Order: sequence, then structure tokens, then C-alpha cells
Amino acid sequence: MERVVMKFGGSSVATIDKIKQVAQLVVQRKQEVKDLVVVVSAMGKSTNHLIELAGELSNEPSECEMDLLMATGEMVSSALLAIYLNAIGSKACSLTGFQVGLKTSGAHMQGKIENAGSEKLDQCLAEGAIAVVTGFQGIDEAGEITTLGRGGSDTSAVALAAVLNARCEIYTDVAGIYTADPRIRQQAYKLDHVTYEETMEMANLGAKVLEPRSVEMANRYHVPLYVALNTGDIIGTQILSEDERMEKTTLTNVSKIDEVLLVNLKAGDNKDLNITECFLRLAHAHINIDIISHTVDHEGNRLTSFTSTTGSKTKIERILKELAADYTFTEDVSKVSIIGSAMRNQTGIAARAFDVFYAQDIPFYSVSTSEISISYVVDTAASNQIVNALADEFGL
Amino acid sequence: MERVVMKFGGSSVATIDKIKQVAQLVVQRKQEVKDLVVVVSAMGKSTNHLIELAGELSNEPSECEMDLLMATGEMVSSALLAIYLNAIGSKACSLTGFQVGLKTSGAHMQGKIENAGSEKLDQCLAEGAIAVVTGFQGIDEAGEITTLGRGGSDTSAVALAAVLNARCEIYTDVAGIYTADPRIRQQAYKLDHVTYEETMEMANLGAKVLEPRSVEMANRYHVPLYVALNTGDIIGTQILSEDERMEKTTLTNVSKIDEVLLVNLKAGDNKDLNITECFLRLAHAHINIDIISHTVDHEGNRLTSFTSTTGSKTKIERILKELAADYTFTEDVSKVSIIGSAMRNQTGIAARAFDVFYAQDIPFYSVSTSEISISYVVDTAASNQIVNALADEFGL
Repeated sequence: MERVVMKFGGSSVATIDKIKQVAQLVVQRKQEVKDLVVVVSAMGKSTNHLIELAGELSNEPSECEMDLLMATGEMVSSALLAIYLNAIGSKACSLTGFQVGLKTSGAHMQGKIENAGSEKLDQCLAEGAIAVVTGFQGIDEAGEITTLGRGGSDTSAVALAAVLNARCEIYTDVAGIYTADPRIRQQAYKLDHVTYEETMEMANLGAKVLEPRSVEMANRYHVPLYVALNTGDIIGTQILSEDERMEKTTLTNVSKIDEVLLVNLKAGDNKDLNITECFLRLAHAHINIDIISHTVDHEGNRLTSFTSTTGSKTKIERILKELAADYTFTEDVSKVSIIGSAMRNQTGIAARAFDVFYAQDIPFYSVSTSEISISYVVDTAASNQIVNALADEFGL
Repeated sequence: MERVVMKFGGSSVATIDKIKQVAQLVVQRKQEVKDLVVVVSAMGKSTNHLIELAGELSNEPSECEMDLLMATGEMVSSALLAIYLNAIGSKACSLTGFQVGLKTSGAHMQGKIENAGSEKLDQCLAEGAIAVVTGFQGIDEAGEITTLGRGGSDTSAVALAAVLNARCEIYTDVAGIYTADPRIRQQAYKLDHVTYEETMEMANLGAKVLEPRSVEMANRYHVPLYVALNTGDIIGTQILSEDERMEKTTLTNVSKIDEVLLVNLKAGDNKDLNITECFLRLAHAHINIDIISHTVDHEGNRLTSFTSTTGSKTKIERILKELAADYTFTEDVSKVSIIGSAMRNQTGIAARAFDVFYAQDIPFYSVSTSEISISYVVDTAASNQIVNALADEFGL
């Protein structure tokens, strides 16, 4: 292995002892690879503390200053890790976002990576030192320090791996990507391989493993991505492209998202609800809507339903009232999804899934399909039962 | 007033409430001046906490990493102050050492300022915003973040004032520069004016007001320097060059330094001690030696004495033993100094001071004079008495 970028999140470097543990893993990896870059997040909840301090000074702190404030968290953890690596005899240098040329564009606190790489980083690696890089931060065209928003450190790591032509290893609190949430399904098992597309679909459909942004970037730049436990002693999950996957599985994952709100609209001939107008207004109010279904009943009424989150209920209700819509809410529902790129080639998966619902006598309100997933809206009370039944059927 | 650089130390921004107080003073000053730069240190003891963390990881943390680690303290305080200034309606931007182009040379953790100023700083001021700059830090030629060592934030402020052609105002816990330490002499009073030279001499001779480095730089670049209380409601002390001072005073200050070690060496004809060799070895061991005096006694013995600090006693003893020197130590002594550039032109000051010692019946072991100061080595037990007596004589 020539080059590797390892990434450790906030909980992996939360204390001095954890930093020492991470260092052991890093030193071990350095013996196996030529060039090693380590990307770290801020220690535990240290960034939250800084946000609280800012909150005491302003209700709406200026984002440019928040970026500088928050970026200090990663500087502390990267400096400390480098200090310890040097102390135990492994040459290391800490490098900030701007020192590794991590150029961003876009708004403060949600910068998008435009470019990465610098002479300083190359020089550090050329000297055989481990480059310990601050995650989550970059610098924009105007020379302002920026932060990358949610999942920023994963994205920093993938971006550096892309420019260095390196493998990217994300170390976290879980041992890899599972077929289902082990808290819901005891028999869930870790996948050895999964595709970029499936990982992105999982992230969008409730499996909290990797931020879709970083996976998308890894896919675009063909960065081999690997997720594993931050102790390093269990083999994790390799994320690769469809054509790299040797073993063909049927499906890879069953996920669920709770706190879904199902909105049912009824429009007859007389009281004509303009559905387009309704969706435009919801979009304008930044309300995400998801599974949309539409039918016409026996009396000729047009029935439309869509899902959103329970958190958006008040806003949605206000808009529907303004439009004098005839609506009902179905609450305490969940979205259960099965995911697998094998769906593209294999037929009958939808039929088998429908059979499971029939056999379990669990009704679903709504269904939507993508190229590599099928999602069902069901009562939350029945959601764990159906997750297990679907996992049984597809061996997940 | 066109341009002003205000500097606030760590204790002035130690808490959220203190940051708010500083902001009030800054906003008030901004109404009086066109361009305003504010340089801040890290909040209270926050840097010490970071140093402790590093200490848990390494006995000798790499200095390059320590610089990055310590530099975060000032980033936090400058971001927080800028957040609050914006919150109360005063446009402000926070800028780091590298963003204001504070270029340094020399070793890590003790960088020397080579240059300062950047487009970003000019732009911020041109927009009428208050530039809130991190003190104590810069960037070196290799693009490494550096810190400036002791008194670094004062020096940052003076360097920025020099390039901006601005007045530099240092706000601290004391109301200005006093004729003597008020804890020793109740009648000590604040000086309205004092010269750069006197201030440097005072700093070297025990008055802990400003680091000599920043005063030296202010002197070199003709930066008007002002020291005042961080609440801003008492007029402080203006530091200026000799020819700018309107009122002519005799002396400006009486200071003392405790924990002085007096070393007495005796070299006869037989056991020839090479004094030069001795001083070279002490210098090699990084031991500062100060007042040196030399006489020959009635029997032809060469008597040499010098002062150092009690903290260096063990090292000094080791070296003297290696040289088989005939030595004694006089401990519990202090160095009392009178300072004033008026010494240059006024005669009789030394005589008046000697008279004070005679009248008080206090002996001194050693004396040294510079162009603008006279220092006496006396027993610590008598030091406060002589400080007061000298202050009485010279009206300090």
C-alpha cells in the first residue's frame, strides 16, 4: 500500500487517553504504508463548548467568526496527536486546512471543497513524516478560514485521498456498515463490501454511517473508501464501485427512519386544490417532502399523499390552511427501506417484499422505489417487526 | 486621531463578561478614530490549559506543534470579541496572525516579527470595520504558524501600529506606569509621560509593566505608545521619546528585584582563577549575570563579585567547583534601582542617592550605573525601606 488517509472523528480523540490509542493505531499503519495522512476532528464535544460561548455573546453570531472559532477545535486535536506521535518516536507534523491547501467555496459554515494539496503536505510526506491534518476546515478565495459543515471531516479526508491518489480509511465507533441497525435486528451482520451508491442510499434512508457528501466525492474521484472500528482490531467494510465488487449479493441493507409525518390531501371537483402551488409553497418554506403518491378514488376525488418529518408539522399545517386544503395527518409512522444495487438486475424483489408485508399482515400507506431501493411508509409500532421480517427474507 | 491599535491582555478577556466590557470600550474608541485595530491575547489561563494537555502527552512537546496549539487561544478570543461587536451593531472582522501578514523569523515559540500588514487588513479597515487581530502569533517563511514568546501580544500590537502608522494603546490591569510599586510605596503616583528608554530600563530593572521588546520596537519605529487601565476611565501613561517630553522631571521611577544572588570570588597570586573562563562557562550554561564589580584588597587579592538569580545557584556552584574557585554566596539580597533619563544632564544624582543610603544607615554590596539608571545591591530585609527613602528624596 503506497498512500493512506486515516480519519478519526471527535469521539475517537475525545480524551488524552483516546488520542494515545489513536496514535498506536497510526504508528502501526505507518509501518505498512509509505505515505500516511491522518485527518482528525475536534476533541469530543469541544466545538459545542465554543458554540455555547458564542451563543452567550450573540443570538446570531457572524458566520465568518464562527468559522474561525470552530476551526480551532481541530487545530488543538491535530497538534496534540502530532505531539504524542513525536513523543513516541514517530515523526509527525500537524497541518491546518489552509496549510494543506484545502480550498473551499460557498457560504461560511458550509464550505464546499474546490481543491486540496500543497507543497507543505508533499514536503511533510517526502520527509517520511506522518501528516496530521485538521479536518472540517479550509480556506476560501478571500483567505478566510471556513468550515465544511456536517460530515466535514470525512469530506476533508476523502478530498485529500483524491489528490494524493490514496486509500481513505474512516475510523468510527462502529465496526463498519451493517445489513441493518443491530439495535433493531440482533442478527444484523457487517458487510465486507458495499457500493458507493448503496452507501449513499443508506445514508439518505436512515443508516447513520457516513455522510452522503463524502461518499459522493469518493465515488466521483474513485477513492477506495473503508470504514472500520477506531480500535483497528476488527476488519471493517470496504466501499467500492459496482464493477469492483466480486461477490454478488441480493440486497445489502434494510434501514428505517422514524418520526415521519404522512400528509393526505383530498381534492374533489368543486374545491380544486392546486397541488403544484402547494408543493411550491412547501419548498419555499424549506420543508423537505419525500414519498409522493397520487390516486383517484371511486367518486373521482384526487387523493395525494406525501411524507415529511414530524418536526415540520406546524409549518405544513399553516401552509395547508392558507390554501384551504382538505387534509389529514397520519402520525407515528416510519419509513422502512430495503437497499441493494442488485435490484437493477434482479427481478422479483419488489414482489418478494410485498409478500412479506402480506404474510406479516402489516399494511403500508405508501411506497416509493428508486433504482436501488424500495421504501415503505408503515406504522412505527410495526416498523421493527417488518425490518426483521424483510431482513429474514433477504438474509440481511 | 486617524488610526489606533488597542491591545487587551488575557486577563482583560478572561470571561464572557469581560469580553463584553472590552467591546464597550472598543465601540467608544471607534467613534473617535477612523481606523481601529484591536489585538487580543487568549482568554485568561486558557493557554495554560492547552500546555497542560500537551504535557500529558510529551515531556518535550515539539515546538512547531506547540505553536499551533497555543495559537488557537487567541483565535478563540478574537472570534468571540468580533462576534459580540457585530452583535451590538459595530462591524468587526476577526483576523489571525497570518491573515494580517505578521511574518516571523527565528525559533518556534519565540518568533521575531519581520513584517506585518496585508491586503485583508487594509480591506477590513477600508470597509470601516474594526479589525480584531489575534495577538502573540504569526507565520514564518515556511508557512508554519509561530508564536512570539513572552510579551508577544504587546509586540504584535506595536508591529501593526508601526506598519499602519497608528498610535498603540496597551490596556492592562494597572492604570499606567507608576513612580514605584504601590505595594511597596503607598505614595507612588502614576506618570503622565515617560520615555521609551526609561520604560525599557524599568522593565529590565523590575517594574513589570511592558515587555522591553515591544517598547524597543515602538521606539525604533516611532510608535506613540500609551498604557492605561482596561476599563478606559482613567488617563494612563504616554510613552514618548526624550525630545517629545514637555515636562522635565528629575527621575521617573524606583524599582526593585528580589531573589538576587550575589556571588563573591577571591583570587590570590597562588590560586589563579581565570575570571574570563568562569564567565564564559556561565554564559555557556545560559546563566545571566548582572552587576559585576572588581577590586583588589590590601593583600593583593583580586576580589570579583557578580549578581545572578537565586534560581541559578545550583548551576553556578557546580561551575565554580569545577574551576576550584574560592567563592562565597550572599543570599537574600535585592537590586534597587533609580531610573530617569534626566540623569544624562543632571549632575549630583548619584551623590544624593549615596547620601540616602548613608542617612538610612543601609549598606549596599555593589553598585552599577547605566546612562539613565543606578542600581544597588542591598539586603532584601532593608530593600523596601530604601525604596521609600529614595522615592522621598527624588519625589517619586
